[in-house]
Amino acid sequence: MEKLRIGIAGLGRLGKVHANNIANKIPNAKLVAACSIALPELTYAEKELGVTRTYSDYRKMLQDEDVDAVVVVTTSSEHCWQIAAALDAGKHVFSDKPLGVTLEECKMAQEAVERNPHLTFMLGFMRRSDPSYAYAKEKIDAGAIGTPYMVKATGIDPESAVEGSIRFAKTSGGIFLDMAIHDIDLMRWFLGAEATSVYALGTTFKHLEFKDAGDDETGVAIYQFENGAVGSIHVGRTAPHGYHVETEIIGTEGSIRVSPVPAKNLSVLYNGQGVLTECVENFGTRFDDAYRLEMEEFVDCVLSGRKPGVTVYDGTMSTRIGFATTKAWKTGQIVRI
Amino acid sequence: MEKLRIGIAGLGRLGKVHANNIANKIPNAKLVAACSIALPELTYAEKELGVTRTYSDYRKMLQDEDVDAVVVVTTSSEHCWQIAAALDAGKHVFSDKPLGVTLEECKMAQEAVERNPHLTFMLGFMRRSDPSYAYAKEKIDAGAIGTPYMVKATGIDPESAVEGSIRFAKTSGGIFLDMAIHDIDLMRWFLGAEATSVYALGTTFKHLEFKDAGDDETGVAIYQFENGAVGSIHVGRTAPHGYHVETEIIGTEGSIRVSPVPAKNLSVLYNGQGVLTECVENFGTRFDDAYRLEMEEFVDCVLSGRKPGVTVYDGTMSTRIGFATTKAWKTGQIVRI
Amino acid sequence: MEKLRIGIAGLGRLGKVHANNIANKIPNAKLVAACSIALPELTYAEKELGVTRTYSDYRKMLQDEDVDAVVVVTTSSEHCWQIAAALDAGKHVFSDKPLGVTLEECKMAQEAVERNPHLTFMLGFMRRSDPSYAYAKEKIDAGAIGTPYMVKATGIDPESAVEGSIRFAKTSGGIFLDMAIHDIDLMRWFLGAEATSVYALGTTFKHLEFKDAGDDETGVAIYQFENGAVGSIHVGRTAPHGYHVETEIIGTEGSIRVSPVPAKNLSVLYNGQGVLTECVENFGTRFDDAYRLEMEEFVDCVLSGRKPGVTVYDGTMSTRIGFATTKAWKTGQIVRI
Amino acid sequence: MEKLRIGIAGLGRLGKVHANNIANKIPNAKLVAACSIALPELTYAEKELGVTRTYSDYRKMLQDEDVDAVVVVTTSSEHCWQIAAALDAGKHVFSDKPLGVTLEECKMAQEAVERNPHLTFMLGFMRRSDPSYAYAKEKIDAGAIGTPYMVKATGIDPESAVEGSIRFAKTSGGIFLDMAIHDIDLMRWFLGAEATSVYALGTTFKHLEFKDAGDDETGVAIYQFENGAVGSIHVGRTAPHGYHVETEIIGTEGSIRVSPVPAKNLSVLYNGQGVLTECVENFGTRFDDAYRLEMEEFVDCVLSGRKPGVTVYDGTMSTRIGFATTKAWKTGQIVRI
Repeated sequence: MEKLRIGIAGLGRLGKVHANNIANKIPNAKLVAACSIALPELTYAEKELGVTRTYSDYRKMLQDEDVDAVVVVTTSSEHCWQIAAALDAGKHVFSDKPLGVTLEECKMAQEAVERNPHLTFMLGFMRRSDPSYAYAKEKIDAGAIGTPYMVKATGIDPESAVEGSIRFAKTSGGIFLDMAIHDIDLMRWFLGAEATSVYALGTTFKHLEFKDAGDDETGVAIYQFENGAVGSIHVGRTAPHGYHVETEIIGTEGSIRVSPVPAKNLSVLYNGQGVLTECVENFGTRFDDAYRLEMEEFVDCVLSGRKPGVTVYDGTMSTRIGFATTKAWKTGQIVRI
Repeated sequence: MEKLRIGIAGLGRLGKVHANNIANKIPNAKLVAACSIALPELTYAEKELGVTRTYSDYRKMLQDEDVDAVVVVTTSSEHCWQIAAALDAGKHVFSDKPLGVTLEECKMAQEAVERNPHLTFMLGFMRRSDPSYAYAKEKIDAGAIGTPYMVKATGIDPESAVEGSIRFAKTSGGIFLDMAIHDIDLMRWFLGAEATSVYALGTTFKHLEFKDAGDDETGVAIYQFENGAVGSIHVGRTAPHGYHVETEIIGTEGSIRVSPVPAKNLSVLYNGQGVLTECVENFGTRFDDAYRLEMEEFVDCVLSGRKPGVTVYDGTMSTRIGFATTKAWKTGQIVRI
Repeated sequence: MEKLRIGIAGLGRLGKVHANNIANKIPNAKLVAACSIALPELTYAEKELGVTRTYSDYRKMLQDEDVDAVVVVTTSSEHCWQIAAALDAGKHVFSDKPLGVTLEECKMAQEAVERNPHLTFMLGFMRRSDPSYAYAKEKIDAGAIGTPYMVKATGIDPESAVEGSIRFAKTSGGIFLDMAIHDIDLMRWFLGAEATSVYALGTTFKHLEFKDAGDDETGVAIYQFENGAVGSIHVGRTAPHGYHVETEIIGTEGSIRVSPVPAKNLSVLYNGQGVLTECVENFGTRFDDAYRLEMEEFVDCVLSGRKPGVTVYDGTMSTRIGFATTKAWKTGQIVRI
Repeated sequence: MEKLRIGIAGLGRLGKVHANNIANKIPNAKLVAACSIALPELTYAEKELGVTRTYSDYRKMLQDEDVDAVVVVTTSSEHCWQIAAALDAGKHVFSDKPLGVTLEECKMAQEAVERNPHLTFMLGFMRRSDPSYAYAKEKIDAGAIGTPYMVKATGIDPESAVEGSIRFAKTSGGIFLDMAIHDIDLMRWFLGAEATSVYALGTTFKHLEFKDAGDDETGVAIYQFENGAVGSIHVGRTAPHGYHVETEIIGTEGSIRVSPVPAKNLSVLYNGQGVLTECVENFGTRFDDAYRLEMEEFVDCVLSGRKPGVTVYDGTMSTRIGFATTKAWKTGQIVRI
């Protein structure tokens, strides 16, 4: 069996998830190299994952001939040049979202993809690989809800993680850029159309630190799409019950709700308070399978020559819409996209 | 509009429910008389319900020519003779369940019904009038689950009411006679067949007072039916979440569960513990509509000459099966019915 | 027992619901008079409800000294003057929603209420009386979700009723005025604050007749509230599963969803397609209890001298917000309220 | 990282699942050898899983010094001697359920485990490793439902697989031995006690071929436990909605239902029929994770010297109870265990 030889760049929280999947869970992939500017991350790769070739210089890893593909899980602001450099070095590339933090960067990465059409590029919108989301898309493509004309997307981080969000509030780019990228991608994916305008509001009732940092705890946006469809997004930081990602897709013949109750598992508890379903605690638990499945998809695309469903343009568009949403939120105006 | 003139016998907890429904909620009925051996109950009827003719002697009320029908909500041991006397006095009769506390009594009531075929008799198995149960029956009759071949019936009182149950444990006739009559009726109703044998077990883990009284806190029974179908009953005293009445009817093409989550209403709470549905507290709340609807049905049957779905034989059979279940439980043997 | 003597104006579909409740379901009320310009409606009142005093002239009914209170269920454009006239004639008034169809009318009714402070006026926002909504409000008032800061309100008519909606599309005032009044009231009620601006979009994918009539099949609006809270409304005409009214109230410590699954009853069907919950077909079924309970509340308020929770100002405000929403939808602009 | 070197015996449907997990999904395990009497299965192991050492003689594989542990997934009747032989050859052993098909065999395997206390033996009751079941056990051990005193276990195969069940009806040992072993284990596990008697019934309404083969389509059994607890089992062949495994554990302070709705994923469909949850199709889909997790547990136990939670005695006891249940079903008598 042919195995794709992968080098990973970045072994932070999510990088470790990807690295472990590649090393241990994906039959036709092999984690052969790791790159990080943090020494402990390289030690982790060696000790825990048996990676023998470690690099602190990303460009050096790109020269490694035993590396077929690069998985980029570095800081968002590094994604684009690393994508371009890897492609230009002849490597297939999987990059985690977002594509980039500016539109210029995104365009640069886009051009690198375009000038290397023989190479595979895939962006890590892992929700599309989640079994529940993939099921929704399949049902919709099979006509289960007629023509989709509205998407209501919700993504709320667990209150238990709010300290971290507060800490990064000043540098995160604001709640929409930080949190809504996946929801934006889902709207576009399910509607099969592009947004043309956005209006947005923010609010902060619990953790005023967000306000102090020029951010908001909760954001709501509403989008007009080119084909007449509408979309709405609600992002937040303070779900008490766990990690709440929910998407409703409404069509002419029905609708699908993905995860209205983000159940931890199939058990239900009957106790003195009523009938209770416990919920997933965080994105790791919720999208555990999705991270593995998107990587399987990437590896399979490279090995089979198939094109991934998520393209570089999805990255550019979601970033563009993220910026427009942020502008709408900051100015209180309707923003054309 | 013709109105059925009703006299009620017994104005205890459930009697008041019926009396209020007749007086205030059923357009074509009128509460004209009330009978009780408890003076405050008669005062209640006068003051709260505007009943002008009150009796402490049941037989006197039967002589009242302005009473067309009698509703019997007295102590169970009085039901049968009161039913017979009312019928023989030319009154239509609605009696609350159980029909009687001995089979001999039941037979006596049965004979009175048979010798007065022109009069309407209906027994208060109100669950059959509950919208959820009535819906299940309609769906089943329409073929939604094919041929029903198994019924799993559960009825658990709320823990909050356990003190009362403990107090009556010695005189209640045991958990199956006290609690399973409705479930027995439901099994027979949904399966359209009679039980031929029963095996039963009891257990007590929380309130040992039940054990001390020769009773059990929880009872489980399994029934063979003449047509090959099977039924099971689970009754108990200690549901922490509320009043739990649930019935599953399984057929060759599907199954229906009535009230797996006895939700108080259509609201769902998301909080620090998860996603929570609060439940109905007691039988009054759960079967509020059913009590009204069964009385509507009785009144409508009398006025239109229709035969009620619940017959005197349903009363006899459920009592008989209740006794057989109790014998199985007490002896540890399989009991033929 | 004292009984409130009520005269009803208007006995159309909803008028009949109210008339039946008053005549048959509310112990301390009596339907003594009926007024309609449609003769069959008066015949109905006489034959079905035993009303002996019928009027084709509303002002005549107001002169009836045996009428303590008037229930107004006429065409929306008649509400305000009828309210004012009744109050000025010394009658208590219950009016169905909306208060009026112009703000000038609403103000006129408002002034009549203000100059008759000894009389009870209540507006028919019956959702507030629905057990599920009332439960949500109680839980929220008891602190179950902390401080509410966001309401997402959804109201979608069943596809089965779409023909009627299409027929009235030209004269309904548009989807927001026709459908969102209740949702607007719910937002204000749950947030305890007033909206200051609105942005709205409409879309039509299935029944282009709405577009032809200058209307839309689906409307979405987003509101800023004075206290920083936000609200969103989604109204539509084409729910395939039934009548879908859902409201989510989000607070700093939790959230409540009222009716995410508008279940017809407590039964669940397991069949070849999966696990299925059938839904309520229409507003009558869904809000049957609410219509009765709001009338009980009105009667009780009059008899006890309590002030109803729904005031004339709720009527004016919801109408004002309805107009603002419609303007936002029509102009594509953010509208200050 | 140390890796456990595993040889697998049997590569049928379930054998392939285990083999793939060992080869690709379990970081600290390595599939080094495979044994089968079916040549295509060995070819599969070589081609798909890269296994270089293949055996058609089980005893030969036991002589392979590079094999640390043996995973037995052969025909049930081969389990016991293969377990004993592997242990006596110094190999750790994981065997799929059931332990054996006669009690004598089970005892033989038990003795082999006892005379090799330094070796790890684990039985494949994979439901215990399923996240939902493991969660239920953890909650219960943490006191969430007080003292468990009743277990209601249900296991119904999908109607879509009924042809296969009919084909094997004559040789399967009957519905209880074929289907209830897992449910029996769950009852014992959750109650922490042994059953002392059983009563059982069978019924066949849809596929009379079961009856013709001396089997039944549906089986129901009720158990008395030594500590006073009770258990019930409902097994069947004809779930229309999918693969239905559900277990309710009832305690003095609450209850847990594992999988009352065996949802395929977190999506819910709103369509013309109502609100629909699609269900898992088969045991492979339902217990995919469980098969992997139980193997992880086995490997981890061997490498760390921990004792697995599932012992050889669990195998003997469940087989014994399975025989007793079958006897009760066949004779119509209460059977002491």
